[in-house]
Amino acid sequence: MARVIVDVMLKPEIHDPQGEAVLSASHRLGFGNVTGVRQGKRFELDIDGPAGEAALARAEELARELLANPVIEEFSLSFAE
Amino acid sequence: MARVIVDVMLKPEIHDPQGEAVLSASHRLGFGNVTGVRQGKRFELDIDGPAGEAALARAEELARELLANPVIEEFSLSFAE
Repeated sequence: MARVIVDVMLKPEIHDPQGEAVLSASHRLGFGNVTGVRQGKRFELDIDGPAGEAALARAEELARELLANPVIEEFSLSFAE
Repeated sequence: MARVIVDVMLKPEIHDPQGEAVLSASHRLGFGNVTGVRQGKRFELDIDGPAGEAALARAEELARELLANPVIEEFSLSFAE
């Protein structure tokens, strides 16, 4: 079985109110040296078969069709360590 | 500036309805070889100073205090590539 990680983040030019809320809260908590926060989603997919190109390709298809909104989000794929 | 990634996932023993919804949807879309999905959060933190132990320690504090709920979630830290 392959475990593929799909990280989905808003594109850099898209406003991220969740991240901004976390940034404000971190300053209120005394973390003044935090200068930026972006919040996204992480998916751990278990896919039948070996951890190879086929599993990555399948995960990429799923990310395009279901996990990410290509209008506002971008994603990256990796195998779990 | 250091960019630290904080990945927050539900603990393995905690029921993950979001992940299960994604799993069901992936099967409906024909991705029958996807056998499990867990959904979590990913934070990208920009922290003043070098990408070293101090930045990681600060990110860990912030994760404990704000980003993760220690009752039901676990987190991991890494530097952005």
